[in-house]
Amino acid sequence: MPKKIHKPIGHHYIVEASGCDPKIIASVEKVQQILVKAAEISGAQVWSVSFSKFPPYGVSGVVVISESHISTHTWPEYNYGAMDFYTCGDNVDPEKGLFYAVEAFGASTSHITEITRGLDEGDDVFYHSFVTWEEDFGED
Amino acid sequence: MPKKIHKPIGHHYIVEASGCDPKIIASVEKVQQILVKAAEISGAQVWSVSFSKFPPYGVSGVVVISESHISTHTWPEYNYGAMDFYTCGDNVDPEKGLFYAVEAFGASTSHITEITRGLDEGDDVFYHSFVTWEEDFGED
Repeated sequence: MPKKIHKPIGHHYIVEASGCDPKIIASVEKVQQILVKAAEISGAQVWSVSFSKFPPYGVSGVVVISESHISTHTWPEYNYGAMDFYTCGDNVDPEKGLFYAVEAFGASTSHITEITRGLDEGDDVFYHSFVTWEEDFGED
Repeated sequence: MPKKIHKPIGHHYIVEASGCDPKIIASVEKVQQILVKAAEISGAQVWSVSFSKFPPYGVSGVVVISESHISTHTWPEYNYGAMDFYTCGDNVDPEKGLFYAVEAFGASTSHITEITRGLDEGDDVFYHSFVTWEEDFGED
């Protein structure tokens, strides 16, 4: 049995971004650029990317990072983008990348739940906890 | 502006699977086979897969499906696997694939949150709601 040296705690952000710019979130190229840059801004190491059109008008994509994954699925006809950022380890700052991506989508507001995953009481029975908030991106 | 024909509602399952078989969840090949089969059982169409070793002992992987994505990150040294299943549309049954995958990992119990994403009150301001439960996988 290998030694337990890395706690399996992870931070998973579930984001509904509203009021996005439809020209941006309908573009596979732009959405991919934004998510890859978000990974870099978070300090994550990019392993692979997979982006494509998401019928009828949107984009679907995943950036696999060494510390887990970032994904998005967009609905330009609703100015809406769903994102999730899941990272493990202490060397990444997912919130930095997340806020960058939401702003780059042109969102006016977002509904965010941060899930702390891989929690246990020392008994290897794992659970998660969460906190939810709204984040506005107004003009200033 | 394109017509709004597909509501952006999605079902995202966040799963902590405990008591998994470390021989299974340490194998990139086995974990990939299980997740791809889970996608097929859900009725999802697989677009791409990306699986690799997840240091120190685990596996990290994402299956991009036409209806969104399935991912896992495993810690065999804790008999623990984190999974998420995110699907949109009415033609998939993510719970079928999810339960298959958790059982195939050999889990004894799992802590699951189902997040309903892309909800709005007709105002294009999106949010999510969730429900959490424990699922035991005993001998029978």
